[in-house]
Amino acid sequence: MSDFAATKALFHLPEGVIYLDGNSLGPLPKAAPARMEEVLRDEWGEMLITGWNKAGWMAAPMALGDRIGRLIGAEPGHVACGDTLSIKVYQALAACLELRPDRRVVLSDSGNFPSDLYMAQGLLASLGGDYELRVVDPEEVGAHISDEVAAVMLTEVDYRTGRKHDMAALTQEAHEAGALMIWDLAHSAGAIEVDLARDKADFAVGCTYKYLNGGPGAPAFIYVAPRHAGAARNVLAGWQGHAAPFAFDLDYRPNPGVERMRVGTPPILQMAALDVALDIWERVDMADLRAQSIALSEHFIAGVEAVAPQLRLASPRDPQARGSQVSFRFEEGYAAMQALIARGLIGDFRAPDIMRFGFTPLFIDEGDVDKAIAIIAEVMAGELWDRDEYKVRAAVT
Amino acid sequence: MSDFAATKALFHLPEGVIYLDGNSLGPLPKAAPARMEEVLRDEWGEMLITGWNKAGWMAAPMALGDRIGRLIGAEPGHVACGDTLSIKVYQALAACLELRPDRRVVLSDSGNFPSDLYMAQGLLASLGGDYELRVVDPEEVGAHISDEVAAVMLTEVDYRTGRKHDMAALTQEAHEAGALMIWDLAHSAGAIEVDLARDKADFAVGCTYKYLNGGPGAPAFIYVAPRHAGAARNVLAGWQGHAAPFAFDLDYRPNPGVERMRVGTPPILQMAALDVALDIWERVDMADLRAQSIALSEHFIAGVEAVAPQLRLASPRDPQARGSQVSFRFEEGYAAMQALIARGLIGDFRAPDIMRFGFTPLFIDEGDVDKAIAIIAEVMAGELWDRDEYKVRAAVT
Repeated sequence: MSDFAATKALFHLPEGVIYLDGNSLGPLPKAAPARMEEVLRDEWGEMLITGWNKAGWMAAPMALGDRIGRLIGAEPGHVACGDTLSIKVYQALAACLELRPDRRVVLSDSGNFPSDLYMAQGLLASLGGDYELRVVDPEEVGAHISDEVAAVMLTEVDYRTGRKHDMAALTQEAHEAGALMIWDLAHSAGAIEVDLARDKADFAVGCTYKYLNGGPGAPAFIYVAPRHAGAARNVLAGWQGHAAPFAFDLDYRPNPGVERMRVGTPPILQMAALDVALDIWERVDMADLRAQSIALSEHFIAGVEAVAPQLRLASPRDPQARGSQVSFRFEEGYAAMQALIARGLIGDFRAPDIMRFGFTPLFIDEGDVDKAIAIIAEVMAGELWDRDEYKVRAAVT
Repeated sequence: MSDFAATKALFHLPEGVIYLDGNSLGPLPKAAPARMEEVLRDEWGEMLITGWNKAGWMAAPMALGDRIGRLIGAEPGHVACGDTLSIKVYQALAACLELRPDRRVVLSDSGNFPSDLYMAQGLLASLGGDYELRVVDPEEVGAHISDEVAAVMLTEVDYRTGRKHDMAALTQEAHEAGALMIWDLAHSAGAIEVDLARDKADFAVGCTYKYLNGGPGAPAFIYVAPRHAGAARNVLAGWQGHAAPFAFDLDYRPNPGVERMRVGTPPILQMAALDVALDIWERVDMADLRAQSIALSEHFIAGVEAVAPQLRLASPRDPQARGSQVSFRFEEGYAAMQALIARGLIGDFRAPDIMRFGFTPLFIDEGDVDKAIAIIAEVMAGELWDRDEYKVRAAVT
């Protein structure tokens, strides 16, 4: 049984703050500053260029990939870490289109994170011709899977509502139509149980600064199923994905495996912070985490609905249909969220009216949830927000 | 007059090491560990998600871009920092091809860094049809510029030999043929005087972990000339380049300026290290730096040629035709370089036979060069290398 009191003690959490925004940026692992000092002084400072071998920097992207892969049911050696999530989406989608050269439709939904859609738009515009990004309602994805579709590209858990797609079922439907399936795990990795191998995902991508607590701007990752590893072309054919990067050939020759999905020189300082954060995950069983996440979320929903009838649940009521966040709709949500934050409860806001709260059992416990409910009760009952802030401003997360 | 004794004191250099490999990875600025501790504890740790605004994280890519831009003659607001150099090459080239839709040739040279060529190959393969990457000898680039050429893509300073292209002349030749010019400044930024605006470059890209000392995996940068800023499309259309990233529109709408070249969430820890490194550059005049670099290089060449006749100069003898490195050819160069490194002189090796030494006046002075010459004299006169290492192995830098 995972010991969440023990994991909570491994994070720095500011005095007087209830942090329900680990789904945007996870908190600082207490071990990170010492590890970073070591990387700076003992590795960069003392080893200089030799750190690429001696300190294992060159191997970091695949080593971290395996640490992440363990949390999402990936086969060892099939996850590469690096770049940003948007870049990884682009690589996955470009590879899919080449694996299905006779098809022209990319199917996604309006609950996808916009950057995923933007990257698809950017790619398809460069390919010209008759490619089409078809964006449908989340509930209608299955009905739109057809033999026109090259790739179905979805974020498993909706960043606003927390609605969770059925990975196994949709992947199977895609395959039955001859399409490939790309899963964005931004709100899944470290949040819910994911089993990419079992559910037969073709590609998956994700970020590590949310539930995995890798720090601001932590690198992304990409998974390629074993059956595609030798065939999926990396359109961003950088030297780190070359079969022999230090041969300095003039022609690209891909690494035989998923390492081909590497692009340029890896961000070693970010990767060191991520590595420390992943140490904490070694103590956690994902089934325990999911159970605890559901317990916290259910407790929160019941509490909020009892004290703040103005807030309308935007997340699915069935916990199995949710990720690890709970969202409420409220017309003056932006201003109300500022009032909560001023009182030490940090959630976030997503236009036009979503107040979003993330549940992260690694460092949030039932006592925190009770305090959060009490703050919400105080603010909502007293209408303690600034009406001048009612008009939505750019909320940065 | 720049005070290079003062800048040298700002770097940590390991005891007993002469580091002539700042052209691969610059050394640790002494101020970096304290700054990183601050970013971890006071920003990430205490501000959590609010750091994106409060700590200026969201603005970092353009703020750093301007700091870099000052060193390469870029107009303010026209450099965006982020991602890796390979990614930035891809963005620049894709934009050029769309700005010259009737042309199908990308012209580069065999002295370009292989990853730049790989990225072009990766891009052109996805576009299909009749696109061609034409790779010619460095001396023959001018002769191959024609009205078939959409973009000329060159690294200004050859990573192996240090040979420097004439930026102004080649850019003009490209423009006269109606082509666009992309300059890779990997071995230029912080190494030599660059004036992108004066020389009318269309696009430029570069990295910050070499002469700029941003640390292992420090982010890259891209410059877009003002005349293209509103027209150059970012094929990697990530949300950070959107006109309103936090509106979460389903459709991409580019930022009106060069900020459109941003892609995903910026790597804040790497950027903090880079920012500290760029502080040092505030003290430096690039004309002074270039003069000192040439003085050190000339001294080194004269010294090495006097003590080690086996080494044949691979770099141009005319210092104006070189960047800030000096390379020698030697058949047993890999093994000889290991012997130098074992004696505290760190240079590097590039297949098949190049021994490479970088001159970085910020932290290398004439005394260091004298010591380097003495070590080379000892090793070469005594043939003190391990002949079993004669066969080239993968040399990692």
